[in-house]
Amino acid sequence: MTEEFEGMEQLRKIQAGDVRTASRLIRNLEDELPGAKNAIRRIFPHTGRAHVVGITGSPGAGKSTLVDALIASFRKQEKTVGVLAVDPTSPFTGGAILGDRIRMQRHAEDPGVFVRSLATRGALGGLSKAVGDAVHVMDVMGKDLVLVETVGTGQQEVEIINHSHTVIVVLVPGMGDEIQAIKAGIMEIADIFVINKADRDGSHQLESEIMSMLNMVSEFQGGWRPPIVRIGNCFEPGPFGESLEELAAVIGDHYRRLVETDLLGDRMKRKTMVEIHEALRDAILAPILKEMTESGEMGEIAGRLLRKETDPYTIAEEVARRRLK
Amino acid sequence: MTEEFEGMEQLRKIQAGDVRTASRLIRNLEDELPGAKNAIRRIFPHTGRAHVVGITGSPGAGKSTLVDALIASFRKQEKTVGVLAVDPTSPFTGGAILGDRIRMQRHAEDPGVFVRSLATRGALGGLSKAVGDAVHVMDVMGKDLVLVETVGTGQQEVEIINHSHTVIVVLVPGMGDEIQAIKAGIMEIADIFVINKADRDGSHQLESEIMSMLNMVSEFQGGWRPPIVRIGNCFEPGPFGESLEELAAVIGDHYRRLVETDLLGDRMKRKTMVEIHEALRDAILAPILKEMTESGEMGEIAGRLLRKETDPYTIAEEVARRRLK
Repeated sequence: MTEEFEGMEQLRKIQAGDVRTASRLIRNLEDELPGAKNAIRRIFPHTGRAHVVGITGSPGAGKSTLVDALIASFRKQEKTVGVLAVDPTSPFTGGAILGDRIRMQRHAEDPGVFVRSLATRGALGGLSKAVGDAVHVMDVMGKDLVLVETVGTGQQEVEIINHSHTVIVVLVPGMGDEIQAIKAGIMEIADIFVINKADRDGSHQLESEIMSMLNMVSEFQGGWRPPIVRIGNCFEPGPFGESLEELAAVIGDHYRRLVETDLLGDRMKRKTMVEIHEALRDAILAPILKEMTESGEMGEIAGRLLRKETDPYTIAEEVARRRLK
Repeated sequence: MTEEFEGMEQLRKIQAGDVRTASRLIRNLEDELPGAKNAIRRIFPHTGRAHVVGITGSPGAGKSTLVDALIASFRKQEKTVGVLAVDPTSPFTGGAILGDRIRMQRHAEDPGVFVRSLATRGALGGLSKAVGDAVHVMDVMGKDLVLVETVGTGQQEVEIINHSHTVIVVLVPGMGDEIQAIKAGIMEIADIFVINKADRDGSHQLESEIMSMLNMVSEFQGGWRPPIVRIGNCFEPGPFGESLEELAAVIGDHYRRLVETDLLGDRMKRKTMVEIHEALRDAILAPILKEMTESGEMGEIAGRLLRKETDPYTIAEEVARRRLK
């Protein structure tokens, strides 16, 4: 009864936008405390109001600076903003490396802005799950927009970005040909392309490369052909400042298109599928690994594998036979 | 009986270094064909001879060029080399985007070199598992060195790189401050640092940054302080060519140190733990997801979640109760 009461109190405070309660819950989600899971259960029915915007792209593409400028732009429109900065994680140390990104601190005094960094030591997709849950918290806080910024473009980043309704891919000119490959990999999830540092050499070439990739697509979902927004130096007045307003407007356009064409339902389904996968991984695989480690079975298996007495597939099938109904 | 005979024939051919048989098996692993799993069971007891070297670092760091130059260097020492280029994967298209890296084609005619690209459409760590298995194939082919090159530095890349005995982290000067974060994230797994494009501005600053990070470490495993190797333009003669020979020598030194200090056992245990985790994910979680999708349950659950009738944690616990003994 008391726990239930505390839970309702927590929900009420988060709905009222209380920063301390929300921060504590996000930290508990990151640390995978069991109470945090119950809090999400209570929060979940109240989610679904915020427009979630994922921002991804290569390291060095200037995403944090862009997010900072976007916050200012949305604030001018009197929209409230939550920002989730997802940091690369070392599986050895865990912990958010960049902290609550320094550049965004100029918004620290603004009650309409709530910035949190997220990282987790958990393997098995723990980070993506924590991101999905932290988005729910910011949603229930009443933020109009939740910006999710990830570093990198691997499979895990795609999982993270799949918690969004609108995906922005940030590119910069002159990053070499590996970037091409990454671009191709995230091409299909992009709703908006940003060419950042567009005053650099090669920005027009990059733009035509994206265009030719887009030209190969025969039909765009909901008739939305991902626009390409060129951005220079966010902090200078003049044309660059205007391009930022353009980006903010395009983000709004995309959301309206999602609603009008009923694509929003599709995006929410994608988000939901990611959440189911992650929750299953957590509820099924994690306890088995934990039990095997604590009982010493894992160490014993490692020994047998090192002595080549068995192989990983045979071991896994034995465990599955023993543990699955 | 016939399958068993074919299996033994396949093993014999791979042990003899047959490129076609090995290539086909690696492709089947990538496609997650069930027969490929049985092949790995047969191969596994014969593994453990090759020195597996993981090469990671940011996109644009010039890793492919470096690997190409390293191949040439090891070939001069009359060592045989397998190369596994791990490509970023789109979860929507799958498939190796860069193909068998173009730059390495000058080694295509050399029977002592075997280069394969790897990518997979599978979620749930499928790529890392395929990498581990492909390394086994190259090991059994008799390659003295297996170089595993990954793009990116996310959690999945760390999993991939954990299949290695020696980890090389490649950095380039002047990549902005997000690189700093990534550097910190992969700092702990680095055995050797390479500063590539060291003729660029900022290379000395980068070097002292790495040095100060290393200075904070109180004790190095096996007394191995990760050396920093500076490399300029691999294809030019003179000092840059020499620095490459230095890198090849340092890689050999690290392996000797692993053997002498018995750290090799630790590394092999780390490799083994990664393999057990991946095999369990494959044997336990994958079939549950497949069954739920095929029976239509997954779609029905998605509907309930979208209508906010339940939450992902409650769903996952129901499934766990039903499926776990």
